[in-house]
Amino acid sequence: MKKKIKFGACLPTFASCADRYCLSGYGPQRTLEEMFQRASIVEELSGVELVGNWHLNEDNFEYIKETLKKYSLEVCMMTPDLWTQAKWGKGSFASKDKKIRDEAVKEVKKVMDMAADIGCDKVDVWLGQDGFDYSFQADYADDWNNIIECTRECARYRDDIKVCIEYKLKEPRKNCYVNSAAKTMLLINEIQLDNVGVLLDLGHSTAALENPAEAAALISRYGDKLFYVHFNDNYRFWDDDMMPGSVSIPVLMEFVFWLEKIGYSDYYTLDIFPFREDGVKAAIESIEWIKAMMKVIEDYGREKIMAIIKDGDATESMKMIREALIRA
Amino acid sequence: MKKKIKFGACLPTFASCADRYCLSGYGPQRTLEEMFQRASIVEELSGVELVGNWHLNEDNFEYIKETLKKYSLEVCMMTPDLWTQAKWGKGSFASKDKKIRDEAVKEVKKVMDMAADIGCDKVDVWLGQDGFDYSFQADYADDWNNIIECTRECARYRDDIKVCIEYKLKEPRKNCYVNSAAKTMLLINEIQLDNVGVLLDLGHSTAALENPAEAAALISRYGDKLFYVHFNDNYRFWDDDMMPGSVSIPVLMEFVFWLEKIGYSDYYTLDIFPFREDGVKAAIESIEWIKAMMKVIEDYGREKIMAIIKDGDATESMKMIREALIRA
Amino acid sequence: MKKKIKFGACLPTFASCADRYCLSGYGPQRTLEEMFQRASIVEELSGVELVGNWHLNEDNFEYIKETLKKYSLEVCMMTPDLWTQAKWGKGSFASKDKKIRDEAVKEVKKVMDMAADIGCDKVDVWLGQDGFDYSFQADYADDWNNIIECTRECARYRDDIKVCIEYKLKEPRKNCYVNSAAKTMLLINEIQLDNVGVLLDLGHSTAALENPAEAAALISRYGDKLFYVHFNDNYRFWDDDMMPGSVSIPVLMEFVFWLEKIGYSDYYTLDIFPFREDGVKAAIESIEWIKAMMKVIEDYGREKIMAIIKDGDATESMKMIREALIRA
Amino acid sequence: MKKKIKFGACLPTFASCADRYCLSGYGPQRTLEEMFQRASIVEELSGVELVGNWHLNEDNFEYIKETLKKYSLEVCMMTPDLWTQAKWGKGSFASKDKKIRDEAVKEVKKVMDMAADIGCDKVDVWLGQDGFDYSFQADYADDWNNIIECTRECARYRDDIKVCIEYKLKEPRKNCYVNSAAKTMLLINEIQLDNVGVLLDLGHSTAALENPAEAAALISRYGDKLFYVHFNDNYRFWDDDMMPGSVSIPVLMEFVFWLEKIGYSDYYTLDIFPFREDGVKAAIESIEWIKAMMKVIEDYGREKIMAIIKDGDATESMKMIREALIRA
Repeated sequence: MKKKIKFGACLPTFASCADRYCLSGYGPQRTLEEMFQRASIVEELSGVELVGNWHLNEDNFEYIKETLKKYSLEVCMMTPDLWTQAKWGKGSFASKDKKIRDEAVKEVKKVMDMAADIGCDKVDVWLGQDGFDYSFQADYADDWNNIIECTRECARYRDDIKVCIEYKLKEPRKNCYVNSAAKTMLLINEIQLDNVGVLLDLGHSTAALENPAEAAALISRYGDKLFYVHFNDNYRFWDDDMMPGSVSIPVLMEFVFWLEKIGYSDYYTLDIFPFREDGVKAAIESIEWIKAMMKVIEDYGREKIMAIIKDGDATESMKMIREALIRA
Repeated sequence: MKKKIKFGACLPTFASCADRYCLSGYGPQRTLEEMFQRASIVEELSGVELVGNWHLNEDNFEYIKETLKKYSLEVCMMTPDLWTQAKWGKGSFASKDKKIRDEAVKEVKKVMDMAADIGCDKVDVWLGQDGFDYSFQADYADDWNNIIECTRECARYRDDIKVCIEYKLKEPRKNCYVNSAAKTMLLINEIQLDNVGVLLDLGHSTAALENPAEAAALISRYGDKLFYVHFNDNYRFWDDDMMPGSVSIPVLMEFVFWLEKIGYSDYYTLDIFPFREDGVKAAIESIEWIKAMMKVIEDYGREKIMAIIKDGDATESMKMIREALIRA
Repeated sequence: MKKKIKFGACLPTFASCADRYCLSGYGPQRTLEEMFQRASIVEELSGVELVGNWHLNEDNFEYIKETLKKYSLEVCMMTPDLWTQAKWGKGSFASKDKKIRDEAVKEVKKVMDMAADIGCDKVDVWLGQDGFDYSFQADYADDWNNIIECTRECARYRDDIKVCIEYKLKEPRKNCYVNSAAKTMLLINEIQLDNVGVLLDLGHSTAALENPAEAAALISRYGDKLFYVHFNDNYRFWDDDMMPGSVSIPVLMEFVFWLEKIGYSDYYTLDIFPFREDGVKAAIESIEWIKAMMKVIEDYGREKIMAIIKDGDATESMKMIREALIRA
Repeated sequence: MKKKIKFGACLPTFASCADRYCLSGYGPQRTLEEMFQRASIVEELSGVELVGNWHLNEDNFEYIKETLKKYSLEVCMMTPDLWTQAKWGKGSFASKDKKIRDEAVKEVKKVMDMAADIGCDKVDVWLGQDGFDYSFQADYADDWNNIIECTRECARYRDDIKVCIEYKLKEPRKNCYVNSAAKTMLLINEIQLDNVGVLLDLGHSTAALENPAEAAALISRYGDKLFYVHFNDNYRFWDDDMMPGSVSIPVLMEFVFWLEKIGYSDYYTLDIFPFREDGVKAAIESIEWIKAMMKVIEDYGREKIMAIIKDGDATESMKMIREALIRA
């Protein structure tokens, strides 16, 4: 790799991961300080993704700033909290209640300011509670309109902060509105503001039955709209948030290939939930997998790979993957 | 139902359906004449969907015209054949081979002319062979560009014929390019021609993990872009082409509700594959299911339904569905 | 319905439901007393399912007994807690650690005693943490053996308490061992003890890509081995724990038909997670759906339905479902 | 690899592959002679799997025997044709029609004799047409009983021929009866005959949402019941019959590891459908992938791998897979 890749991780990687059955989490409870300290053990890691309120708020701003400095970490992404509280349960930007929508927009703006203050130029707008569970429960036309309006208002608030729309097919809502690369681009093309783009989460993409490399190519058709990426893996039926490489190796390899091809140059950030694993070890291993993909591509040669793609013979693609990838 | 709904069916509903295991088909072989005759038995049916070459071509044009008249049927849709021949195996509009792309465009134009001649104002462009099976087999950027260029060229050829883009997640390609309502709208919004719109196949939508009602609402945001619909059902993992209502009743009911809500006014066409059933009986039963959905909606009252949607309480949605739908 | 059906519900139906994003739950917090009180509002409900430790334990035994009496409820099922604590994270019966396995068996035995004391003759052994997430993480042979040994030991402990094995494809483990009706029957057939049988959760069955009616028939081939059922619904990709009827109406109707056909006579218990709904309303509506299925079957006539099944013509099956089910 | 592995392939690998859209097939038509000749090009291939009637029948027996000799191939498996003809459309062993069931049993017996005559000791009983498509279409109890009775009768016919039951979740029926390793073992355990065992098709296993390595371990719990394996790959939603390694590399690696662990010693047979590929190249590449998996396991060391499995730390599993597998 000639270019230096920056690796990031969502901070909860280094905390105890809970699910709906084990609400207290599978690992030991960690203080914020411990989470940063543990992040700092991961040598290649330079950025952490923080959630507003939860990790960073008005009260602990100076403390977090100090802690970041202490552990030589920067904030690679700020995520407004639009999902951890019951009030967002039936939606934030797509809430039927204008007051809730206003509150959601306000929350995003607040975190945009906070991001700027902490030295981060982007926020992750993930609308996980915006969608519907049952038939005949939602006015799809109104709701989509509200999502567009709220996103636009946030983006206009300050154009020095990038609004990264993170799509996901489902969970926590059984059906989320912003659920695919194409639908996110529809929204972005309609808003037409330079500071709105896509956060492509690798696992969200595969669980939405996309090929992430294709999704990246599609997004980049409309300009430098791939603002940010998350790495993880799953069995395609759910957002399992496993370590990258655990299930979909050729998909990971091809995604890494296309990221460079389209000129993506921001963080390679882990969004994993190491429920039953040590988060530090899981982060290290995840980064090793991404680096391994980069290395096998470089070793085999990007031009040779491109020639095979252009040829389109799947037996040659399989041969290339095998020869590039497999130690045999 | 105040408004008269027109029902159509793909002609192969009335023929023998084959799959990759039973290539000769599960039912008795039928002549073209028999297919039309069988279609005519289905009282409510007024339109048939024909595939170019296969059902309608230069050689049998007059014969088909006569036969339609004889059985009081009209052509509700003409579908260019871009998938039954080996030459399309690696793509039509997205073929890597310019000659094949040109041939595909020519084929579509030919069928557009044929449609006009037979009194039908639309063609169904279904790009089932355009996609990829394996990783590192396709240049997603180039291929998507070619799809847009070819579609544009066809649409410009004559603006009196509507080009209906039918999306499908997969099959025959393991991954198809034009695979969701949102992606189809991205394409359509880029082309910006009045005669390009969407053909929403109910089962393609559920198998793409969409909610078809939401898809219809999304499409209609961008104008009268829902040009046409296909009805069928499946278990969400594959395009099973079963009778509507067989699996997803609330989805069907909500889709029918939204079709009227957005002002859809064209054919309600069956695209089923009654492999082991009598096609005539399957078509009759399918139409009964669609009509039943319309009736329960009318009986319960569209305004009352809309109020429940606006409220968003899923227990009320479930109560409404039960009271409107279930004979108990 | 000639026979009186008893309806039950898992107690958390009446509490606040949480997920991994909103750990504090979407609804208001409820005391145990409130949960029972809320359950008692649901007129048709006579049984509640309690989790050991969490709902019923050594310390509150008398209080719970009183409370049940106060609200005229009985315990229809006791569920040993083998999943809410971090110590079970890597397995209970299939833990690699003999100490944990012993603890799990002890926990089940304790709850068996508790069940007997509270007047309930069965326990629900759900091994949600027993499985694996990643490749090369588990010794499948050893683990399966341990599951059989532990189950056998519990069953032998006291034969007046039925051990109901609840299967589930996944969650919380990405892959659970006891994951289908057939695999559960393999285990049961090997153990060969009268008091070991199956708990069939409708949603677990559909999410395991089974047809629940077929699963019930399969289980009943090996004697009265369908000990208990749970009702809910989902989109087949995850255990969404929605109200029955919300997605899979024909599946629900057929399941209810087969339950009676095979002579199932125990509780019809709800296992729903009404995250964003009022639990009382959700329980009432769920029971209405089940009762509606029973009624449409009785009204149409079981013999007429059986004749259609025997005939096997899907167009007649669809016609029957429509005529029996749909108010149109 | 110390032990010599024998590789086989289904004969249609070397013919033109068709699907329901392109019924004439994507590649050039091939004569039987050409198929064998093409198989013989694949150096590592020593066995071919033939379908009764289609490939081998009373009329061409001597010719096929000569041709096998000419190309130094042996028959590794004979498959009775219970699916290519319309008469099997509604079932073979589970047909509601006793005449059809008898015919199916007769067909299997005929092919058992044929197998013996051609020097092959096993038949592949794949009941792809035995199942149901719609709700209320099948008597699950009767049908399962008939499957067991017919299988038993075939197995008793001659005990020198192994009856290998091949399970598959779906296709061509929307739901097949014999659909998982566990259900197949239920059937086998009930029949209790030495010459009945399982044919595990890798892709059928992943599409049934199994982990094939776990399935192999489960089967081997009940004796040497894993009679035969098929290799291929898919995206888990359908039996895509792609080259092994194309999607699920860790799954393939772990399956190969467990095959040797449980002492599987028969053919490693390809069951791929190279629709758009050259069959010879696809077979060669598929074998290279399987061999690569064997080699990386040997190079890393089976004992070291077993120690990691026994430890159960997923970060160590991922590290092992990376270090063993990835050329980086």
